[in-house]
Amino acid sequence: MHASAPAVPTAGAPSVDLVPLGGLGEFGLNMMAISCGETTIVIDAGAMFPDSDLPGVDLIVPDLTYLESRRGQVQALILTHGHEDHIGAVPYVLPHVQGPLYGPPLALALVEPKLEEHGVTHGPGIVPVKPRDVVTVGPFTIEFLRVTHSMPDCVAVAIRTPQGLILHTGDFKIDQTPLDNDSFDLPRFAQLGAEGVLALLCDSTNVDRPGFTGSERDVEDAFEELFTSTEGRLIVSTFSSSLYRLQVLIDLAASFDRKVAFIGRSMDRNSQIAQRTGHLHLPTGVVIKDSDVGNFPAQDVLCLVTGSQGEPNAALSRIAINDHRHVRLDDRDRVVISARAIPGNEKAIGRVMNHLARRGVDVITASDRPVHVSGHGSAEELKLILSLVRPKYFIPVHGEYRQLARHAKIAEVVTAGLPNAVHVLMAEDGDVLRFDAEGGRLVDKAPAGRVLIDSTRVGEVDDEVLRDRRHIAADGVVVPVVAINRQTGQLEGVPELMVRGFVTADDEALLTDGAIRLSEVIEACGIEERTDPGLMQERVRTEVRRFLRKRTGRRPLVLPVVMEI
Amino acid sequence: MHASAPAVPTAGAPSVDLVPLGGLGEFGLNMMAISCGETTIVIDAGAMFPDSDLPGVDLIVPDLTYLESRRGQVQALILTHGHEDHIGAVPYVLPHVQGPLYGPPLALALVEPKLEEHGVTHGPGIVPVKPRDVVTVGPFTIEFLRVTHSMPDCVAVAIRTPQGLILHTGDFKIDQTPLDNDSFDLPRFAQLGAEGVLALLCDSTNVDRPGFTGSERDVEDAFEELFTSTEGRLIVSTFSSSLYRLQVLIDLAASFDRKVAFIGRSMDRNSQIAQRTGHLHLPTGVVIKDSDVGNFPAQDVLCLVTGSQGEPNAALSRIAINDHRHVRLDDRDRVVISARAIPGNEKAIGRVMNHLARRGVDVITASDRPVHVSGHGSAEELKLILSLVRPKYFIPVHGEYRQLARHAKIAEVVTAGLPNAVHVLMAEDGDVLRFDAEGGRLVDKAPAGRVLIDSTRVGEVDDEVLRDRRHIAADGVVVPVVAINRQTGQLEGVPELMVRGFVTADDEALLTDGAIRLSEVIEACGIEERTDPGLMQERVRTEVRRFLRKRTGRRPLVLPVVMEI
Repeated sequence: MHASAPAVPTAGAPSVDLVPLGGLGEFGLNMMAISCGETTIVIDAGAMFPDSDLPGVDLIVPDLTYLESRRGQVQALILTHGHEDHIGAVPYVLPHVQGPLYGPPLALALVEPKLEEHGVTHGPGIVPVKPRDVVTVGPFTIEFLRVTHSMPDCVAVAIRTPQGLILHTGDFKIDQTPLDNDSFDLPRFAQLGAEGVLALLCDSTNVDRPGFTGSERDVEDAFEELFTSTEGRLIVSTFSSSLYRLQVLIDLAASFDRKVAFIGRSMDRNSQIAQRTGHLHLPTGVVIKDSDVGNFPAQDVLCLVTGSQGEPNAALSRIAINDHRHVRLDDRDRVVISARAIPGNEKAIGRVMNHLARRGVDVITASDRPVHVSGHGSAEELKLILSLVRPKYFIPVHGEYRQLARHAKIAEVVTAGLPNAVHVLMAEDGDVLRFDAEGGRLVDKAPAGRVLIDSTRVGEVDDEVLRDRRHIAADGVVVPVVAINRQTGQLEGVPELMVRGFVTADDEALLTDGAIRLSEVIEACGIEERTDPGLMQERVRTEVRRFLRKRTGRRPLVLPVVMEI
Repeated sequence: MHASAPAVPTAGAPSVDLVPLGGLGEFGLNMMAISCGETTIVIDAGAMFPDSDLPGVDLIVPDLTYLESRRGQVQALILTHGHEDHIGAVPYVLPHVQGPLYGPPLALALVEPKLEEHGVTHGPGIVPVKPRDVVTVGPFTIEFLRVTHSMPDCVAVAIRTPQGLILHTGDFKIDQTPLDNDSFDLPRFAQLGAEGVLALLCDSTNVDRPGFTGSERDVEDAFEELFTSTEGRLIVSTFSSSLYRLQVLIDLAASFDRKVAFIGRSMDRNSQIAQRTGHLHLPTGVVIKDSDVGNFPAQDVLCLVTGSQGEPNAALSRIAINDHRHVRLDDRDRVVISARAIPGNEKAIGRVMNHLARRGVDVITASDRPVHVSGHGSAEELKLILSLVRPKYFIPVHGEYRQLARHAKIAEVVTAGLPNAVHVLMAEDGDVLRFDAEGGRLVDKAPAGRVLIDSTRVGEVDDEVLRDRRHIAADGVVVPVVAINRQTGQLEGVPELMVRGFVTADDEALLTDGAIRLSEVIEACGIEERTDPGLMQERVRTEVRRFLRKRTGRRPLVLPVVMEI
């Protein structure tokens, strides 16, 4: 068999367009549209959490103009796994999809509450798939392949198109000893490679790391030592979707006779969902309610908490400033941050650690002990996939430009010695990559970008405001400026509320009342909260939104500026 | 001799107050006042560079209220070395000092242009000191001890007071093979320890790192390999004060027949100063002007550039977007970032790397190769100092709260086995630590905080605006809000200029003109600059300040909000 034969399309076969709508040029927002003739399918619908570059919003989702332009032709949304950067935009994308939503059971279970919150029911059906399942959507035949990652039940997708086979890895690392023994389907990757792959789309997240990433089991020893040596409560903060990590910790807790409390909304919700789908196993009697933490001796408790990124409203931030309803720490307790710092969050995490240090609590991070392992493959794993798949075209996905560029260089080196060198296509969000008789190339730009979502709370989705780039100015902007004395926590002067395009600045009464209300709220906070600009920024934003909504019924974009002086 | 005898003060000896005015609770702003009777001396006068928590200002210096309260009694300012976080506030502090400015020659040489810019002449004299020199200031006898760090000519200070000996390490690591063979004076540290030290104040910066930091020579091998393998220009970005790093690179350039260009204002200035003081040695004929970079073959050039932290106006940021007058890169060139990312700067540095990747340039960081070594001692070096000095009281300095707290724990472990356990005093900025017959303890709070400096350019210091916390509201605040399409770089809508306390918002003509001017400036930028929020923020700030100053003659605080959507 000639290895690359099936990749040659039949003469006159219709062209296939690959259109990345997110994740090629940023971390997050992962979404890829594939169009052929009258059919478009979409792989993943990810969200992104805003950082200091995009203040004043809760969530970011991809611009869907391209899907709108394919109205009536979007025949499937396919999820590779249940991380927010792959499923967070599903409630926004699904109404544009006329065909089924496909995905592994865990991913679908994690999507379900999102759809409920948004009141989205999906007539065309929600279809769970398992590895090696094959579904056909118009000219596409889609096969699901097991891959390993930091959560269970992840898949890659192999899509047979009239132009050849497109293989999209999704997120992965090659975990040779997965906690649930559900192994990466390397044999099938190799088979498809031998059969001939037109285009490989591969996760670039960890391209900068040399070597292999390591198994989820690699944290077991460090945690075992921490269970042994911690005299008081053990508090571990990690992503609530890192279910393997949670399982390792729960199993250790059971063997060390500690009770487990899930603290924080997403920790509670995700652990329940994963239990239901069979992806998290809780020995009988191990779990206690968060409100019972205080009723057990400190040395008998493990708390699994949200907030590993220093998020102001998450459990760990509240615990750190001694402002959590159920958990109060003392100097025998130990906090472990079992996650990497997502770039941009370093200072917020540092501030949480400062607050914990004030409690006398020992804080352990991945730079102290091996308490975290990444979910994404390092350079050698990326090379291995390239060597197995030997695609005709290679398209690095999931990364900022520098990661994509480095992945491209790796691909060139790895495949230099092969009979058919790989063609690297460097694409960014909105680029239209066409495959036809002339080969694969960039032919066009589709609209792509970010839509900002502003919603006060889960459960208030009715009031959710979608702001695309055309609406920001029209909705109005309010900038509260607050100066706080870093030493005393006192407000310096009265806060300023600056407004444009929302009410006229002449409405002095409204602005004065708002400023007074804001002063009161700030003065009611504890000194640790007042001297933490990250926490204050969130507090000011929430409070000003609430005030303006109550007084005017409107929801301008609120961009707080908190100065610590 | 009884080891701790001289640490026991004579009966009735006057009390000594230690008052940290910066650096205990943050990185930067290092400044410590020591008062006894009618005499106060000040160790270091550091500045801090603002980050996203303090937008709209150029520099931060410590609040000097405590020094004002000691008017006429501040008899010396003593510098330990020439880094900005130790000398950046000298022009602001010196007018409060009635006695001499003491410091090692390199530090004084680096201060000199700052004083010139600010028109500060210091009547009481500027006195260079060398290791083992002793000066007397009122009740204090101050000895200077050589320590090693990432720059030459650094000292610790040992201060004999009526209450005993206070030893302040300044910044240090223990470099066993300093590039200039000017070794850490460990013997004198040991002697003083044997004599008896009342209080040790020790640098906590790297307390979180296990082991030893390593010598400045440790980067030589990695750079030698890079000189060997780089086909085009070699561009190395590092702090311009990292003179050992510069020396390593210059020596390699000479042996590899590359010419050296210093690119960026501070790189140019510091290399000239250090040459003059004999701390940087440039072989004849090696240096070329920045404007000559284009006249040499790429493989014959080494550029030493500013901007390792992604600063928008620094040389590396301009080079990265192909907007530098003299340096244009292509895909045979290589950029090395020979510095760590200061927390908070990760995203800005990442953006510079993305731009460079678009040029096809290979970017090497310390996570790829050992091209950087820290200037601060790791845990084992801190333990060594504690073991040698064996102080009665230990006060961790230079760090956020969590570093100080961890350093305190290390001190307790190290000294647990000694005959006299160390007493740790955890202090923060403004705490007054008193030493008298009752021992050492926290007795009071002095005013401490941050003063924000807003100056357009060096050379325009006349127009420098010092804003302390009482003046921010009065000066007025302007918030330009700009939304830019991440994909196209186009402005989305017209920029908004929001104002409070500066002009009335009724002056619509001013605001409209300002918004139009801002639109024009943004549209004139290249797409790479427009789609980089960090660069745009600085551009918007500069432009709005210039516009308002021209039109109104006033200088409100400008806090730009740039949204990338």
